[in-house]
Amino acid sequence: MENNIKAYPMKGGDGDSSYTNNSSYQKSLAEVVTSLIGEVVADKLDIQSLAGEHPFRIADLGCSVGPNTFLAVQNIIHSVKLKYQTLRLISSTPEFQVFFNDHASNDFNTLFKTLPSDKPYYAAGVPGSFYTRLFPRSSLHLVYSSFALHWLSKLPDELMAVDSLAWNKGRVHYGGAEKEVVMAYRRQYQRDMHVFLNARAEEVVCGGLVVVLVPGRPNDVPHSECIGNVLFEVLGCCLSDMANEGKIDEQKLDHLNIPIYYASPGELEEIANENGFFTIDRIEGLPRIAEPETMHAARRLALGIRVGVEAVFKGHLKDETIDELFESYSKKLEQVPSIYSSGGASIMFAVFRRNHKY
Amino acid sequence: MENNIKAYPMKGGDGDSSYTNNSSYQKSLAEVVTSLIGEVVADKLDIQSLAGEHPFRIADLGCSVGPNTFLAVQNIIHSVKLKYQTLRLISSTPEFQVFFNDHASNDFNTLFKTLPSDKPYYAAGVPGSFYTRLFPRSSLHLVYSSFALHWLSKLPDELMAVDSLAWNKGRVHYGGAEKEVVMAYRRQYQRDMHVFLNARAEEVVCGGLVVVLVPGRPNDVPHSECIGNVLFEVLGCCLSDMANEGKIDEQKLDHLNIPIYYASPGELEEIANENGFFTIDRIEGLPRIAEPETMHAARRLALGIRVGVEAVFKGHLKDETIDELFESYSKKLEQVPSIYSSGGASIMFAVFRRNHKY
Repeated sequence: MENNIKAYPMKGGDGDSSYTNNSSYQKSLAEVVTSLIGEVVADKLDIQSLAGEHPFRIADLGCSVGPNTFLAVQNIIHSVKLKYQTLRLISSTPEFQVFFNDHASNDFNTLFKTLPSDKPYYAAGVPGSFYTRLFPRSSLHLVYSSFALHWLSKLPDELMAVDSLAWNKGRVHYGGAEKEVVMAYRRQYQRDMHVFLNARAEEVVCGGLVVVLVPGRPNDVPHSECIGNVLFEVLGCCLSDMANEGKIDEQKLDHLNIPIYYASPGELEEIANENGFFTIDRIEGLPRIAEPETMHAARRLALGIRVGVEAVFKGHLKDETIDELFESYSKKLEQVPSIYSSGGASIMFAVFRRNHKY
Repeated sequence: MENNIKAYPMKGGDGDSSYTNNSSYQKSLAEVVTSLIGEVVADKLDIQSLAGEHPFRIADLGCSVGPNTFLAVQNIIHSVKLKYQTLRLISSTPEFQVFFNDHASNDFNTLFKTLPSDKPYYAAGVPGSFYTRLFPRSSLHLVYSSFALHWLSKLPDELMAVDSLAWNKGRVHYGGAEKEVVMAYRRQYQRDMHVFLNARAEEVVCGGLVVVLVPGRPNDVPHSECIGNVLFEVLGCCLSDMANEGKIDEQKLDHLNIPIYYASPGELEEIANENGFFTIDRIEGLPRIAEPETMHAARRLALGIRVGVEAVFKGHLKDETIDELFESYSKKLEQVPSIYSSGGASIMFAVFRRNHKY
């Protein structure tokens, strides 16, 4: 289950070395993805139709602080160069410009200081949410986003209204919650993905690709059995316990929710088809990498979750309370290792190609 | 004399609020420059020959952390839009993309967090020295650089060799030094400016502009009378005094030099003509803004110099020694106010247009 976890740090990366120290799984996943990207570029990137004389522009949306973003970008550029060589277009191999994007609160200073010195591209950092326009029209050839698109732009409003059927009292996520809560999360995800695809439709040249890697849920697994949801439910139980012991104000807990949604390939496909600006070249779940049920694995898992979602709790809970929460969380996972070794988990890999006609 | 001073912080900006707090002069200078840039864009920017459908790309090289860079960029965009309107090309007004460049050690985190929320452009940060290539070929339409190009890429090698005629023993700058020292600085400046112009020649589209604002030296003022040099000579005297008192290792002082060169319009013109990639559209000294000879002015001046060049001393001298140095420097400037109210000082304003033919 390690896989669903190391995801969250991608978003939390405000200069903490924690991400760098906790991203080994993603590196090995990146190695799996390497061959997938190679295939995608070889099969789906129509180099001859892309603007010839311009630099080839790549964006990594939600890049955090590396080193995984550097490896991914290097991999993409290698694949594109290979394609040029295969097509015997060596003499016209373009220059590359790479835009590393994340929230303005991301630690760009660290990102910039750790850029590989021999990078074969011109680097730039772009601050801002990928749920907004970030680039000029038709200026990108390949967009990549890894372990970022499961974060919603915000919590659905319905969740916070006491008089709403979707008021998520006593929980921090939608796994095991009322149907209305699940629907509120789902609608927010649909809105966000439309905003994302609309923004990218403006920015990506016709024929350009959007490659997405994101933790998700297999089509046939219900929300309540998706491991990401199960793990957040356990976290919610720990919070409830602490509220019962008077360590957390219960009202605070009622307004605390984690803005993450685990979509299935089917859901994403439906949204992309409805959106219409892109052709789905590929969408699939990657095979799960099993993690042994060890105490060490449980601790790493708890730490991974903490690094990912701690920012959500800050401002709501005191630092000591957060420490105590994750201690009890870690213990609970150690006691019930089956939690993180069973159930449905999936990394979703999707490739969208910008249509030539609207 | 305030003017020559507030220059240096442009380079020192590693996240210190000092620059923000010490940049008021530059802001008022920016207001003077506003009309100049308006003129330049109106008269010299050939919009109709620039790529029509692409975004208009601007780079600020050596931008530091704002707010001056935001004001300058806003001013440039306003002028370009005005030109489109004047030419009745309103419907085709392009999108703008702005690249904020400075060393990777610059505080980009602060820069990104303070970006104006209503900015009419897509922002990106680009880490790296402007004495290297930073952007893809023919990808920029207007390059701006304010109070940055007086910094050399490095100290000339000759300065450091004990057996060299240009060994700058006992001094920290070339004002009042042996002819060989002055020549070594001058040659380094020439090399650097060629590297700068060659890099920009690749990056700027034909007809695109490079607008430079930099502290310099009037054509008819000898180096030894240029106020920037005089001020560094006084600083050198303070260092010598401390060396004589045994507070600084004399050998350290011998290897300590400030990598700044104050060029005259004539010198820059000569280099640009020799380089050949650009036409000089404009090159002139801006009128000096007189500063009253007050104790307050002397202190601000000393602080301004400190913010600018402190980084040069770090690593060579202890923090306490640097504190003491600038205390005695401030006192010396208070005692001899004529130092900073007489002599030659100039802000150089230059506009280069990328030639259509090599």
